[in-house]
Amino acid sequence: MSDNWKDICLARKSAQLALIPREWIIQVPPETQTNVMDVPQECGLLTKRELQITETTDVEILLNKLHSSEWSSEEVTTAFYKRSVIAQQLTNCLTEIFIERALQRARELDGILKKTGKIVGPLHGLPISLKDQFAMKGLETIMGYVAWVGKYAESDCVLVEILYECGAVPFVRTNVPQALMWWETYNHVFGRTTNPYNRRLTPGGSSGGEAALIAMRGSPLGVGTDVGGSQRVPAAFCNLYTLRPSYDRLPYYGAANSQEGQESIVSTLGPMSNSMSGIKIFTKAIIDAKPWTRDPLARKRQWSEEEYSLSEHGGGKMLCFGMMWDNGIARPHPPLQRAMKMTKEALEAAGHKVIDWEPHRLVELYVNSENIFGADGDYDRRSHCELSGEPVIETMAPIGDAHENILGEAFVRTLMDKSGLRSAYDLWKLHREKRELRKSHLEHWKKTVERTGTGRPVDAIISPTIAYTPAPHGLNMSDSFYSTLSNSLDYASCSFPVTFVDAELDKPQPPHAFYNHEDEALFNLYSTDVFAGSPVGLQLIGGPQEEEAVIAMTEIVDRALKVYDAKGRLAD
Amino acid sequence: MSDNWKDICLARKSAQLALIPREWIIQVPPETQTNVMDVPQECGLLTKRELQITETTDVEILLNKLHSSEWSSEEVTTAFYKRSVIAQQLTNCLTEIFIERALQRARELDGILKKTGKIVGPLHGLPISLKDQFAMKGLETIMGYVAWVGKYAESDCVLVEILYECGAVPFVRTNVPQALMWWETYNHVFGRTTNPYNRRLTPGGSSGGEAALIAMRGSPLGVGTDVGGSQRVPAAFCNLYTLRPSYDRLPYYGAANSQEGQESIVSTLGPMSNSMSGIKIFTKAIIDAKPWTRDPLARKRQWSEEEYSLSEHGGGKMLCFGMMWDNGIARPHPPLQRAMKMTKEALEAAGHKVIDWEPHRLVELYVNSENIFGADGDYDRRSHCELSGEPVIETMAPIGDAHENILGEAFVRTLMDKSGLRSAYDLWKLHREKRELRKSHLEHWKKTVERTGTGRPVDAIISPTIAYTPAPHGLNMSDSFYSTLSNSLDYASCSFPVTFVDAELDKPQPPHAFYNHEDEALFNLYSTDVFAGSPVGLQLIGGPQEEEAVIAMTEIVDRALKVYDAKGRLAD
Repeated sequence: MSDNWKDICLARKSAQLALIPREWIIQVPPETQTNVMDVPQECGLLTKRELQITETTDVEILLNKLHSSEWSSEEVTTAFYKRSVIAQQLTNCLTEIFIERALQRARELDGILKKTGKIVGPLHGLPISLKDQFAMKGLETIMGYVAWVGKYAESDCVLVEILYECGAVPFVRTNVPQALMWWETYNHVFGRTTNPYNRRLTPGGSSGGEAALIAMRGSPLGVGTDVGGSQRVPAAFCNLYTLRPSYDRLPYYGAANSQEGQESIVSTLGPMSNSMSGIKIFTKAIIDAKPWTRDPLARKRQWSEEEYSLSEHGGGKMLCFGMMWDNGIARPHPPLQRAMKMTKEALEAAGHKVIDWEPHRLVELYVNSENIFGADGDYDRRSHCELSGEPVIETMAPIGDAHENILGEAFVRTLMDKSGLRSAYDLWKLHREKRELRKSHLEHWKKTVERTGTGRPVDAIISPTIAYTPAPHGLNMSDSFYSTLSNSLDYASCSFPVTFVDAELDKPQPPHAFYNHEDEALFNLYSTDVFAGSPVGLQLIGGPQEEEAVIAMTEIVDRALKVYDAKGRLAD
Repeated sequence: MSDNWKDICLARKSAQLALIPREWIIQVPPETQTNVMDVPQECGLLTKRELQITETTDVEILLNKLHSSEWSSEEVTTAFYKRSVIAQQLTNCLTEIFIERALQRARELDGILKKTGKIVGPLHGLPISLKDQFAMKGLETIMGYVAWVGKYAESDCVLVEILYECGAVPFVRTNVPQALMWWETYNHVFGRTTNPYNRRLTPGGSSGGEAALIAMRGSPLGVGTDVGGSQRVPAAFCNLYTLRPSYDRLPYYGAANSQEGQESIVSTLGPMSNSMSGIKIFTKAIIDAKPWTRDPLARKRQWSEEEYSLSEHGGGKMLCFGMMWDNGIARPHPPLQRAMKMTKEALEAAGHKVIDWEPHRLVELYVNSENIFGADGDYDRRSHCELSGEPVIETMAPIGDAHENILGEAFVRTLMDKSGLRSAYDLWKLHREKRELRKSHLEHWKKTVERTGTGRPVDAIISPTIAYTPAPHGLNMSDSFYSTLSNSLDYASCSFPVTFVDAELDKPQPPHAFYNHEDEALFNLYSTDVFAGSPVGLQLIGGPQEEEAVIAMTEIVDRALKVYDAKGRLAD
């Protein structure tokens, strides 16, 4: 095989470039300009109307304009397509580009609306971006593997089927890390995706292409997946909202995946957007399409307006949140601590309560999860790499990068027992262990009823999604179990943006008694030089199978933060 | 260790006997009296009122009388306890006996109702029997393992917690085969359970103790479990109703189990009763108690009256059933073929439609399931046996039994690839395969819309639960994938009784072209000498996660059969 895989990558990347219309090529700023968020407005490619369309971050407003024919799907799709191609040139966020196919679909929808006066479905006319896992008939799904170049899907995955029926316009697919199993976004075929707020930093992963794209308003709504923070970490790193639903609530059937058949900690899919309205509209639309009639693993459960009205949480009048200031595995960096304080103040100002969340048996859960993820001894990834001869990516650090790899991979191992290939019986043992830990955590949660004063246990936990804000490429090696907690316990969770790292407000703190090597390494990583200016997000963790309530509560937190932010500015 | 395990068994069996009040010991008929169904009425132990109570097979009526204080829980519990002890002497169906504890609970409930005028919950006062898996604080859970004798539970399992809150009176636990993994009921500790319709035949398994007990009216309602037919085969063999719900709809947490942590084909629990009212009342009561707030694996899904009203099946007006006359793995014995014809005629007479069901990829599913069940290379069972030194039970044929073991174990192997211990990665491969097979079967089902004439796909499948009626001990070695189909595909299913084997009507048929050795062996097994007089049951298989609709449709089938039966008798 030799280096044939490199030729395949070069050819595939050239083919991708050739799909971009010449007139959409922009002048890319020099590498020294790390923040490229303003380039779409300044580069001159987008008309005023296209800027207006793409900066309509509230998906509900966008859909209203589409459904009232104020904006046609063709012009909305064109606007987002142009902007997605700008984002591509700046952050390298795309994989599949299929402009004519998307525009044809948009025109078709416009025609139907014009002719019948009726929309096709709740997402009529809306361009939607998809992570490079959601198979679409006639397109490749490469998912970061050289060996998958040239494999064209024979049919749409169930999600895409439903999106079409809902009237959506799937219009680009987005970049991922090799094998998906990283919190960064780099592979040999399409290369590295960067963070538009600071291109020297990662947008996170594995849904990093989505995050960079949506952050730049190159897509109003995208779909990612999450088996250990892969939607929530990129959302937090790129100032976005996202929902990680419970196992099997949204239909995964027919999408490509890593470690397929690993059903112990189930990978889930969910929306990523610049607004909570996008999160709710997508989730409700997919559930209303009864995914269980197409995906044999999808749960049969209607969308519940009652649960969305927080019927199980006192109607949302006075909620009590548990703040996880520190999970005892790694202390969050100063900007995250400030974000949590802001959120607490904002919620209290809005009439809610915030008490301290006490972490419970997280190290045991962490080790259990890692042992499950490692149960194939990395065979799945290695065997897919072997097919083409491409090397397994062992570090995402750019060669010759100025940042010393101060974390290394070794620190993660200190907590783990990655002893390689396990037997089916060993996996069953891990399931027993996990079930007991889940029960224990559930009881721990229920016991908070003694401290809330609301007559209910804590309504939701608020916590970081990861112990730091966007890290330099190659250094984003562990979520320190802030995100994977939700995957392991199957708690529905929403990420939401809070603030930006501020060199003045987020000064380094004196060292604490470190929990472990990882905690120490993360402490040493922090400096405002590296991190200032980048987004700071948190997540809201609800009980199991509480998608509706988690969306509603995140909307409450989001509104409280916006009011608080407005007041803060007035006070300045 | 030597033969110490035998002493443990003897001691445990004596201890059990000692718990039976001397005055409840009856004159057991000689072995030549194979049918013992009338002994409870004839033995003289039960008063007229106790006979009236225990022969109230409609659980709704029983509850009405309990809740209106017409009957006290104490007298109802006493009546069923006495009758359960009669059943024990005739069929050896019990494991744990705890009379005073149950009666104390019953008196407590009577006191509350008297004092407050209110019932504790929907099952107030009702004695409920439990398979020997449902841990109760202070009692052993032996589950057919000698090594588990003397292990006392420190807490109730979630199901028992909920039953207590619903006002039920758990009053006996019932026998199972060693390790649960048989369609018969025999273990070294408690011995063999027999079928009260014919003690030379098996009541089925693994919930065989429940089935023999409930058939004799020794319990109005019991709880079994089913991972491959373990509720439905005994129900069919003992003339009962039962529901196998979908994975994780009812709470299993804290119950003992075989192959714990095997989550690929999930063991489920469900009610067994002499009436469909018992099935519905139990299922609704447990779901209404929100099991997901206690069992982290339980699905969050309310009981749906709308689905019970068959909103997704045209309101139940004209249903279309698919009859699985023969699954292509083993041809059902003549009595089952007649039962299917009767059911078809009864349904058609009631205004419903019945079309032929075409089996779809069942051999692939069968092999996939067997490979999953065998993924530990039988380690789980063997290691639990090794703890005490008891032998692994390799056949349930009684030593020196007159029946030649004409099936042997070999025939099952012809279809299987039980290659022993698998890796976790192999298990993931089986999951991928299973998922694709489930999707394929779902699409196959949906395609029946072309043949039903109702505008809907087939509303449910009707099929045998196993290819024959109660078999002689030791010969009940395979369900030929009639039951395990539902476990593998996770289709909610209800068993219901239809008729009895009739020497005149169910004559042997000429040989057909055999599908495999198993099919041939089963054909050769049939003779009316052996089988006449025993119950014939079928099952109704609904779509995934359709508990409410499956219960409602089984009620419709049951009513149609009763009308048909009454008419048939008039015509005689």
